[in-house]
Amino acid sequence: MARYRFTIEYDGSPYFGWQRQDNVPSVQRALENALSKLGEENILVQGAGRTDAGVHALGQIAHADLARPWTPFRLMEAMNAHLRQAEETVSILNCEKIGDDFHARFSAIQRHYIYRIMCRRAPLTVERGRAWNVKAELDVTAMDAAAKLLLGEHDFTTFRSTDCQAKSPIKVLDTLDVSIRDLHGVEIIEISTTARSYLHNQVRSLTGCLKAVGEGRWSCDDLVNAFEARDRSACAPVAPAHGLYLVSVSY
Amino acid sequence: MARYRFTIEYDGSPYFGWQRQDNVPSVQRALENALSKLGEENILVQGAGRTDAGVHALGQIAHADLARPWTPFRLMEAMNAHLRQAEETVSILNCEKIGDDFHARFSAIQRHYIYRIMCRRAPLTVERGRAWNVKAELDVTAMDAAAKLLLGEHDFTTFRSTDCQAKSPIKVLDTLDVSIRDLHGVEIIEISTTARSYLHNQVRSLTGCLKAVGEGRWSCDDLVNAFEARDRSACAPVAPAHGLYLVSVSY
Repeated sequence: MARYRFTIEYDGSPYFGWQRQDNVPSVQRALENALSKLGEENILVQGAGRTDAGVHALGQIAHADLARPWTPFRLMEAMNAHLRQAEETVSILNCEKIGDDFHARFSAIQRHYIYRIMCRRAPLTVERGRAWNVKAELDVTAMDAAAKLLLGEHDFTTFRSTDCQAKSPIKVLDTLDVSIRDLHGVEIIEISTTARSYLHNQVRSLTGCLKAVGEGRWSCDDLVNAFEARDRSACAPVAPAHGLYLVSVSY
Repeated sequence: MARYRFTIEYDGSPYFGWQRQDNVPSVQRALENALSKLGEENILVQGAGRTDAGVHALGQIAHADLARPWTPFRLMEAMNAHLRQAEETVSILNCEKIGDDFHARFSAIQRHYIYRIMCRRAPLTVERGRAWNVKAELDVTAMDAAAKLLLGEHDFTTFRSTDCQAKSPIKVLDTLDVSIRDLHGVEIIEISTTARSYLHNQVRSLTGCLKAVGEGRWSCDDLVNAFEARDRSACAPVAPAHGLYLVSVSY
């Protein structure tokens, strides 16, 4: 028995999220199925971030304890072959053997997410399902200034799904930046955030509120008032899942 | 009757290219169908670049002569509504009224294409169908140096599809640059080129040869020898369509 650490990328569109559930596709199930094709039956793959349905990952981290003594490179190649054969939109980018004291979820010290927005009237084509199509122009400078009000340790109850199972609504937001990336003349707004951990729907809730600021519907004061209300009903509409990416996890 | 100019974006995956053909989906047909839904029957939509099957566009330009006096914004909105309803992956980004002396194809003075490559063993997920997945690492510095040997006016017979209908194999390549773009730790190689016009399959043929240089299989001398052979059989395997984007057209 040895522990392996995986770096995983996925297009989250076809999945009901990371976590295995009965009778629906999930990223965790896709990985566990690939392992079972390799003779590693009934393996639990533990992920760093339990991404929601439709959320993508560029660098999800997971670990699993396997029975056979795998060469990490060959394990990665074999899993990718089975994932591709099963038409999963999941790939293993890296695999390494790691000590038993490593835990993908509990050893993580920082998680980096980005949220991508494209502002235009025309429906998305090349980026469809990969960014949130907002019909209005957004004031990125105002959004970035507002984002800075949310940094540090706070009670994030306003930005927390009613399904959230965390014991405490207190989280520490390390960074929250709003900027524009130009891709061949196509402007994409990126909201980038790092924190040790997040409440359920926290990034998408923050994004929804920052969008309200960008539209000019909310002032910075409105945002602070919503924040300080510690009341879920004070949150702006939550941003859709398909604009969100788990970029990386630090240990 | 008035002429309208359209800026068009598309995910080329579902189409047999720009050009209308019998019984298969094409971008031109998608646009002409949308116009016919608006009562503009039997309209010819003329495009600047007749992109091949699977090739994408961020800024294709087209024109059409319409019977009714459209407000350009409302025409764009109505076409996008019909395109979306028909589940086409085509969007109109901009629409304007323009003089009869404008011709999307013949007035164009420069076309800008990019070709995107992602080098890694793992199959693509988020970028699947949007970049060429090359399994080996490529030497981008060597590719860019080699690219510079192809600039200017030359006989590009080696880089021309046997189906090419152009009268002359002489073309002028204005720019051909190979660089790396970093997207959140994911490196994407971009081959960017501008020219007044190209031979059929020219960009994908050049890309295939530059990839051979990047792999170290071809030296710069090999590239020059292939070029000077003016022989299609001297070309490296042509790069696949799904990495290619028509970025913009200048007039």
